[in-house]
Amino acid sequence: MIIHMKSSHNKNDLDKIKNRIEELGCNAHIILGSEITTVSVLGETTKLSVKEFETYDGVEFVTRVSKPFKLCSIEGKQDGQKQTVIDVKGVKIGGGHFVSMAGPCAIESWERTLEIAKSVKASGAQFLRGGAFKPRSSPYSFQGLGEEGLQFMQKAGAETGLLTISEAMDSEGLRLCMEYVDVIQIGARNMQNFSFLKELGKVDKPILLKRGMSATIEEWLMSAEYILSGGNSKVILCERGIRSFDKQYSRNVLDLNVVPILKELTHLPVIIDPSHGTGHRHLVAPMAKASLACGADGIIVEVHNEPQKAMSDGPQALLPEDFEKLMKDIRKIQKALGNEEEESNVA
Amino acid sequence: MIIHMKSSHNKNDLDKIKNRIEELGCNAHIILGSEITTVSVLGETTKLSVKEFETYDGVEFVTRVSKPFKLCSIEGKQDGQKQTVIDVKGVKIGGGHFVSMAGPCAIESWERTLEIAKSVKASGAQFLRGGAFKPRSSPYSFQGLGEEGLQFMQKAGAETGLLTISEAMDSEGLRLCMEYVDVIQIGARNMQNFSFLKELGKVDKPILLKRGMSATIEEWLMSAEYILSGGNSKVILCERGIRSFDKQYSRNVLDLNVVPILKELTHLPVIIDPSHGTGHRHLVAPMAKASLACGADGIIVEVHNEPQKAMSDGPQALLPEDFEKLMKDIRKIQKALGNEEEESNVA
Amino acid sequence: MIIHMKSSHNKNDLDKIKNRIEELGCNAHIILGSEITTVSVLGETTKLSVKEFETYDGVEFVTRVSKPFKLCSIEGKQDGQKQTVIDVKGVKIGGGHFVSMAGPCAIESWERTLEIAKSVKASGAQFLRGGAFKPRSSPYSFQGLGEEGLQFMQKAGAETGLLTISEAMDSEGLRLCMEYVDVIQIGARNMQNFSFLKELGKVDKPILLKRGMSATIEEWLMSAEYILSGGNSKVILCERGIRSFDKQYSRNVLDLNVVPILKELTHLPVIIDPSHGTGHRHLVAPMAKASLACGADGIIVEVHNEPQKAMSDGPQALLPEDFEKLMKDIRKIQKALGNEEEESNVA
Amino acid sequence: MIIHMKSSHNKNDLDKIKNRIEELGCNAHIILGSEITTVSVLGETTKLSVKEFETYDGVEFVTRVSKPFKLCSIEGKQDGQKQTVIDVKGVKIGGGHFVSMAGPCAIESWERTLEIAKSVKASGAQFLRGGAFKPRSSPYSFQGLGEEGLQFMQKAGAETGLLTISEAMDSEGLRLCMEYVDVIQIGARNMQNFSFLKELGKVDKPILLKRGMSATIEEWLMSAEYILSGGNSKVILCERGIRSFDKQYSRNVLDLNVVPILKELTHLPVIIDPSHGTGHRHLVAPMAKASLACGADGIIVEVHNEPQKAMSDGPQALLPEDFEKLMKDIRKIQKALGNEEEESNVA
Repeated sequence: MIIHMKSSHNKNDLDKIKNRIEELGCNAHIILGSEITTVSVLGETTKLSVKEFETYDGVEFVTRVSKPFKLCSIEGKQDGQKQTVIDVKGVKIGGGHFVSMAGPCAIESWERTLEIAKSVKASGAQFLRGGAFKPRSSPYSFQGLGEEGLQFMQKAGAETGLLTISEAMDSEGLRLCMEYVDVIQIGARNMQNFSFLKELGKVDKPILLKRGMSATIEEWLMSAEYILSGGNSKVILCERGIRSFDKQYSRNVLDLNVVPILKELTHLPVIIDPSHGTGHRHLVAPMAKASLACGADGIIVEVHNEPQKAMSDGPQALLPEDFEKLMKDIRKIQKALGNEEEESNVA
Repeated sequence: MIIHMKSSHNKNDLDKIKNRIEELGCNAHIILGSEITTVSVLGETTKLSVKEFETYDGVEFVTRVSKPFKLCSIEGKQDGQKQTVIDVKGVKIGGGHFVSMAGPCAIESWERTLEIAKSVKASGAQFLRGGAFKPRSSPYSFQGLGEEGLQFMQKAGAETGLLTISEAMDSEGLRLCMEYVDVIQIGARNMQNFSFLKELGKVDKPILLKRGMSATIEEWLMSAEYILSGGNSKVILCERGIRSFDKQYSRNVLDLNVVPILKELTHLPVIIDPSHGTGHRHLVAPMAKASLACGADGIIVEVHNEPQKAMSDGPQALLPEDFEKLMKDIRKIQKALGNEEEESNVA
Repeated sequence: MIIHMKSSHNKNDLDKIKNRIEELGCNAHIILGSEITTVSVLGETTKLSVKEFETYDGVEFVTRVSKPFKLCSIEGKQDGQKQTVIDVKGVKIGGGHFVSMAGPCAIESWERTLEIAKSVKASGAQFLRGGAFKPRSSPYSFQGLGEEGLQFMQKAGAETGLLTISEAMDSEGLRLCMEYVDVIQIGARNMQNFSFLKELGKVDKPILLKRGMSATIEEWLMSAEYILSGGNSKVILCERGIRSFDKQYSRNVLDLNVVPILKELTHLPVIIDPSHGTGHRHLVAPMAKASLACGADGIIVEVHNEPQKAMSDGPQALLPEDFEKLMKDIRKIQKALGNEEEESNVA
Repeated sequence: MIIHMKSSHNKNDLDKIKNRIEELGCNAHIILGSEITTVSVLGETTKLSVKEFETYDGVEFVTRVSKPFKLCSIEGKQDGQKQTVIDVKGVKIGGGHFVSMAGPCAIESWERTLEIAKSVKASGAQFLRGGAFKPRSSPYSFQGLGEEGLQFMQKAGAETGLLTISEAMDSEGLRLCMEYVDVIQIGARNMQNFSFLKELGKVDKPILLKRGMSATIEEWLMSAEYILSGGNSKVILCERGIRSFDKQYSRNVLDLNVVPILKELTHLPVIIDPSHGTGHRHLVAPMAKASLACGADGIIVEVHNEPQKAMSDGPQALLPEDFEKLMKDIRKIQKALGNEEEESNVA
């Protein structure tokens, strides 16, 4: 931690700060410059508060030098591996494996669920995605089938050999998801629902944590840190588009910069959701290919066989034939770049 | 709802859309223009989905004309009044009354709570604010005193004659807040925690609903609509700053435009939080005065008698003497503009 | 300047950096911490480049401690005054004086210009505003009357006793504005037109420099610094709304936080444009009053006597009677806050 | 154009609007719905102003249905081709050809320019990029070598067989660029310098038009429309990252969504600048590959052989060996996706 003093500070200000630092068990190193004076704090600074020192007289601002996330960081990985690889019943996520999750936005009926599941399986997906609890901005919109939807997913997974992923929005939904699906998705709007994150730290299933609509990378990693520090180390990060000033032609801005950025900061796998990230069907396949090209560990995309009748987000769902074409292109790029799927993830 | 057709649409596309509209119990009115063709949907359109129609062949885009929020809207107010006035044990919020809520960011100890309560009461505040459950981006930060903090608030309120407001982050926190405080605050990060909003619709206490960091005005009102449609009509909207591209000199951008905007859209009271909206002590008083000048129904500000020792957000807390000065200025502006506090809200 | 080293740096990295710092005439002060190592650069660091040091092996990141703007800063004011007061033919801008500039978005005809000028003068404005050169996002939109528009402004100013302000978009426009108007306005889209800023540094008229749509406060001040360092010290800063994620109910977000922020950073006057900052007539007066309440040095507002026929931006123009009412409210708030207009600025 | 009436409108309001529409040579088609009334304007509406109608009594808001850009749009292409292919001395830009432009941020010396040119040529680039006029946010920063820099570029191009591209910031710079380089770059800060755009419409060289930092896609296309409507049809669009709320780990957010979006909207080529779009060397290659994968027509990247001594933007420059590796990966992806470079663009 480095405390930058105002040019108007006095000796007394410095003394108070030095005393407080020593009181907290650290050492203060003062540098009197011609233009600027700084105090470097040495020692175990994790318990020191930037904000406390910013309130002292004579202080201009304070910077924390070490990163606030520990368990998420590459340095913080316990087993010496650079990347976390999450094994879900034999399918690996992270560490160079590329995973494809596909299915409808919302689970609507048994027949449709099965039909879509069969088609995405045939195209090479490893996971069936689908929502039974839907976070809707309007209380008047379709809120999902609930437990019945999860049952359809489980059954469709069993019949097709697909793994399953679905969203939990609260404790009760989490309890149900634990029973029926393989990976639990946490939506963008709950990324900083800290009470819920604490609960997720206590369960023994992988968590796909979507980035909040305007969450910084650091906030996102701190939310993952909540789960890891709670005891659950199986966290998958999922970029789903951020909010910007221009929504005319895409619902969000899919921020692919985060892929190589996260690869430097964390050992956790990074998955991309080009469906919510763009909001328009014709943008999904190009952005899915771009996700792979910049190093993502997988994609989660919406596929629907009759999007005009979808109960949620129809305009962004790929048709089964589009998804098949996309999966072929993905395999071509993987082959070209030499990071073909491992045995376990090949359909 | 108006459906805008692509220039490339054909007769068949129009027929399908017309049939579907009629199937849903509405009427389709087609206008064939030289450049553009549109289909106006007449009738009870609330159940129609913009997204469904956007997936039809030949459709360019669809606009919904009527507002998605009903109970929040001025037209939606049941009793014919233009503004909701919430009466909390005699203190009125909304409808031209101006309310001041003040206190520490986090409740820290009984002595400090009482001391701050006395000082803000003396300066003219009606409410004591303070957090017992703190939403912290880091799992390693101070998370609040919990129930004990609420007990301190209740006791300090009783001793000073102040009403109380505190944040609930989950069901358990809500249960406790219902027991100890007068108004329940919902933080920005929970604005779209829809499961929680549904619970809030069932309680019988006023809810102060903060705007999400990058929530649109419509999303914010839709979240209020969740509470109102659940049965609780006592919602107070609170602007607390939005996220922008420039955080160097203020933590957020306090969006005061929303005050006159909301006054046109909704009957709910609008309160401003200049402490979180700016993040810096020296910006709080100017922005509090601006809030009043543009028509807000009140302010909620952080006051701390020893900000350098505050366990949370010290740098943005006003000192008691600054708050006193602010309250004097506020009374002057109120007097000048002729909207002085009503009897009930005068300290 | 402080250089933060990566945890993986080595002695050799530090030596190279130290040598380079000394080569540039400064001193390096190395602090080896348990967690982190930093190098503080002491001496005349203005010529050192943050970016250069960020490219060295072993460097995590570099922070510049002193502010990059000098002449704009309060410390940089030559005459020892805390605030610049610009005197335009007896009307003072800055230093507690509050100035009102009003008129049509675009100058349209002699009759209309005169009529509007008379009305805003009667309501108490000191300046007539109006555009002769209009920056339009479409090449097909009305681009302004050009020189003839400026002649109308000059004549209307002379007949009514109003000073005049109009926008220059390029060298030729600047030449004409120098001839006809009292203050030259630079639009948001030209805030970082550096070639033009250099020209503005050479003229002898006050420049009202609008903030770019997504310019940071620092970038804005650096653009002012271009003008000041070129030799023209008469710069007025004008906030006109920033771009945000929500444009549904206001065109921009008027960022009033900048008023108290700039008062701490710079001695230059700060004016608010609530017309462009909101884009809607009914939002203008509330935000103009808020501007005054938070400490702005003036407002620039659009007034039109027949807004539905305005050739540009009609929906945001106040009617003359609305402006009259606003000016009355402004005088009341000024009186209440004790910062009434000085003699010179009273109409 | 569709005019949406307020629920409070009256017959008189509608009559006035209808008369005005007919006065302007169009037809009004009124639809009285149970909830909402709209007026559709039929005929040649390009000259009608949304803003005019928004000022009429009884009007809620107005939407323009047809796109404001004409010459840029796919429909607006004169020769019946879907895509513009710009031929620069045999190198094709657009229409499935992929172009690589590489070189230093700023031209610094003859030796360095030549050395970098040789290396990027060897790696397969077709264009040498480099700035002789640098837009710098600080007046105290290095502003570029000017004409001498352009001479170095021209000479290096001639010696290596590379085409050249450099930025013009004003009329004088444009005059010099016309003399020395093959393609003229317009920076983000000048994207809405409308006076300059008009000049660019009159020259006979390709213009690479960078997107403004917070420009919407429509604003960007309207700026291209300025150039096309002025008579110069050779415009290349260049995405260079947009401004967001998170600058901690990347300078900007590279918005790759625009690639497939623009491919639907315009026939103009789209190039990506991952150097400015990210600001960090280790992010450049992943994002360059992603650009290709989502369908971009090329990249423009910064390459420097001694980035720690670069006079501008060193931290984002690739080393020659990194660039060579990137070009190899690009050729592999091209091959895999079957859109290999045409003869003309192969080095």
